[in-house]
Amino acid sequence: MSVESWIAEQKNRLIEDLVTFLRFPSISAQPAHRADLHRTAQWLRVQLEALGFTVSLLGDPPVVYGRYDGPTGAPTVLFYGHYDVQPPDPLEAWTSPPFEPRLTDEAIYARGATDDKGQVFAHLAAWRYLQQQEGRLPVSLHVVIEGQEETGSEVLYEVLAGQGQAWRSDAVLVSDTAFFSEEVPTLTVGLRGLLYTEIRVRGPARDLHSGTLGGVVENPALALARILVALKGPDGRIRVPGFYDRVRPPDAQERALWRSLPACESYYLELTGAPELAGEVGFSPLERVSVRPTLDVNGLWSGYTGPGSKTIIPAEAAAKVSMRLVPNQDPERIWEAFAAYVREVAPPGVTVEVERLHPPAPPFETPTDSPFYKAAEEALRVAWGKAPIPLREGGSIPVLSALSKAAGGPVILMGFGLPTDALHSPNEHFRWRQLWGAVKALTYWYKRVGSLPK
Amino acid sequence: MSVESWIAEQKNRLIEDLVTFLRFPSISAQPAHRADLHRTAQWLRVQLEALGFTVSLLGDPPVVYGRYDGPTGAPTVLFYGHYDVQPPDPLEAWTSPPFEPRLTDEAIYARGATDDKGQVFAHLAAWRYLQQQEGRLPVSLHVVIEGQEETGSEVLYEVLAGQGQAWRSDAVLVSDTAFFSEEVPTLTVGLRGLLYTEIRVRGPARDLHSGTLGGVVENPALALARILVALKGPDGRIRVPGFYDRVRPPDAQERALWRSLPACESYYLELTGAPELAGEVGFSPLERVSVRPTLDVNGLWSGYTGPGSKTIIPAEAAAKVSMRLVPNQDPERIWEAFAAYVREVAPPGVTVEVERLHPPAPPFETPTDSPFYKAAEEALRVAWGKAPIPLREGGSIPVLSALSKAAGGPVILMGFGLPTDALHSPNEHFRWRQLWGAVKALTYWYKRVGSLPK
Repeated sequence: MSVESWIAEQKNRLIEDLVTFLRFPSISAQPAHRADLHRTAQWLRVQLEALGFTVSLLGDPPVVYGRYDGPTGAPTVLFYGHYDVQPPDPLEAWTSPPFEPRLTDEAIYARGATDDKGQVFAHLAAWRYLQQQEGRLPVSLHVVIEGQEETGSEVLYEVLAGQGQAWRSDAVLVSDTAFFSEEVPTLTVGLRGLLYTEIRVRGPARDLHSGTLGGVVENPALALARILVALKGPDGRIRVPGFYDRVRPPDAQERALWRSLPACESYYLELTGAPELAGEVGFSPLERVSVRPTLDVNGLWSGYTGPGSKTIIPAEAAAKVSMRLVPNQDPERIWEAFAAYVREVAPPGVTVEVERLHPPAPPFETPTDSPFYKAAEEALRVAWGKAPIPLREGGSIPVLSALSKAAGGPVILMGFGLPTDALHSPNEHFRWRQLWGAVKALTYWYKRVGSLPK
Repeated sequence: MSVESWIAEQKNRLIEDLVTFLRFPSISAQPAHRADLHRTAQWLRVQLEALGFTVSLLGDPPVVYGRYDGPTGAPTVLFYGHYDVQPPDPLEAWTSPPFEPRLTDEAIYARGATDDKGQVFAHLAAWRYLQQQEGRLPVSLHVVIEGQEETGSEVLYEVLAGQGQAWRSDAVLVSDTAFFSEEVPTLTVGLRGLLYTEIRVRGPARDLHSGTLGGVVENPALALARILVALKGPDGRIRVPGFYDRVRPPDAQERALWRSLPACESYYLELTGAPELAGEVGFSPLERVSVRPTLDVNGLWSGYTGPGSKTIIPAEAAAKVSMRLVPNQDPERIWEAFAAYVREVAPPGVTVEVERLHPPAPPFETPTDSPFYKAAEEALRVAWGKAPIPLREGGSIPVLSALSKAAGGPVILMGFGLPTDALHSPNEHFRWRQLWGAVKALTYWYKRVGSLPK
């Protein structure tokens, strides 16, 4: 049976299983959801065991590890994905609850639909098809699905450190990235690195009456604003000393490719809904989101945030500030320069602390000349009817460098999301066309790779 | 029976009643506490009726109005106080719950203990003593206790607009201010005005993935930081055009008085717990909190503020920003200049809205040459054994100008708080020595005023 016919026949069952997967509120950032992470991992264990994998859950929250011994002489693939999701806040901005999947003709809406449960599920479906049709999978597999991708992969780093040669593979396959657009199938060849920090400013020992004592102390919220403003100029340039020292300029071939894409201003205006674009002067929007580093405030809080007025000078203020890094920036050097600079620009009258919330994620690049990459090009051509383009993506998969080192083979970033999927945002979704296309492309890829000489 | 003996005899009963008053979570800023405001007003009605007042509750949340007809020929006093309180956040900073009063040898701890329930209660106690000892009160009274002092006095402004001549009085008495210190009894002769605003910045239509789209849009939290930093220089000077145009310099007599007070740097360091002082260059700390205008950020929020990391560009950011105004600044002019300036300094790529959360409160001054003021000086000398000093206070009682106009007589600001009471802060308290001293001083004042020629 062709994969198309099989999908048509199995669709209700497949959707039912995906809905179950999406219902788990597996929010790794929030300690209250620790048990949900375990439940999700247990569900994945059952799925993988049914497909013939030998499964172990490693650490807490567990890394789901599944081992499958394929035909003698077939290559070994390390599949990496994650079952944890971003916090769903702000809840009031969701049309339907984030953990009660909503199905429309076009897409499935839920936190994690595209990042990354929906994409992990495409692999489960492809494996199910291959098992049912051929009685076995065409390759040997290390399946690694972790529960902390959104918060720093602490457990997976530990597991990796203890693996030695056990996870050596001929290639690593990851589906946690996106096409440029629905009409432009894409293979991701680079990811930005991530440095995520929290800055805390403390002033008076307690909230003060802003009338009685307004005038004699520095306001911590204003002091924090001064620090944030010192981090990035109105020209979009980050002012941390040495920040741009090692940034590699884009090469001529890449620039030529970008010029062929409809990545004009109106494209990004529509994608973001911002009143106008902004960013680093001297670079096109596509360059700014892919080969240029950025700095963003991800969260900010101080004092009274309820309705109406409260007349206080807050005792403290804090911000979450993160940077995306590009080749060849070194996260450790940038972190040290950042922390020193924040302390230096803090105004008198407050104390300031700066902390890293994540292990550092270096920027990542992958080669395009391996047979595994060529197989991915073919797979997308088969499923979408046109050749994919190679593109860098602005996001990060922090653990990828360590994972790639442990596996030894090239990393294939064959992701099926779309920039319009609202990942990390309210109303995240995954389009059916992308999901079923993914199952078709992945089925092709696993079979094609299975026939490669070992 | 002397007032001291009476207090000693009645102490348990008095404390029990004060505890009941403080238990009502009458937070006017929070709509969820609307019913609590009504319960508090009902409790006050019962108290006043027991003292011989004719009581009406006006508006919603109610202004408690009590009328008492004193001896023929005695002056009429308008007493003003408020039964609403500031929000208790941050709750985790309280040693005991804010609405379960905690009694120590020195003080009573609860939200509202000093601002203003404890001080209103000192009047209830003084009236009870006078009724019990003399069978009547020595003056006619308009008692006005409102439930929106902390949020703009909307209902009271409406009630005042409809009163005509009905509340004409020979003097207005308010106990909602503080001594300079426990050793320096004080009569307040001026209050700063208040302008309270909220600034909202909007960027992308929804929270965006800070990797995928980081680089092409202005970050609303950073845009807000730029606006806030533009409001006040590192020299502590407010940069709104025209802000200082009408500020009156302090006079020589006031400066001489200030030099006699122990208002040195270490005094304010201890009071605030800040690592060092800050504020407008060229002015002493005492000047900065009394005769100089200030600007503070009272609250700030954007994006993800939970534990761990969330990699988003927030769709919006907001801040509560308030200013304290001094003679002869005009709140209406300052508001217009402020709103225009905020819009002007907003960076491109975001939209900005600015709103006033309060009716404007002009700065307030009161004369020191009336017999009612002299009676207050005597009352404090009797109760504390030394003459009080006249001092401006940095806080605001926004409705005072309108109230003073309706009454027609001079306003006496005889407050009994202390700067260390933590009003508007966690662990607010009122010291017993101040409470019982207040009952004694007020008893003296009402009797003395009752003997003044009409």
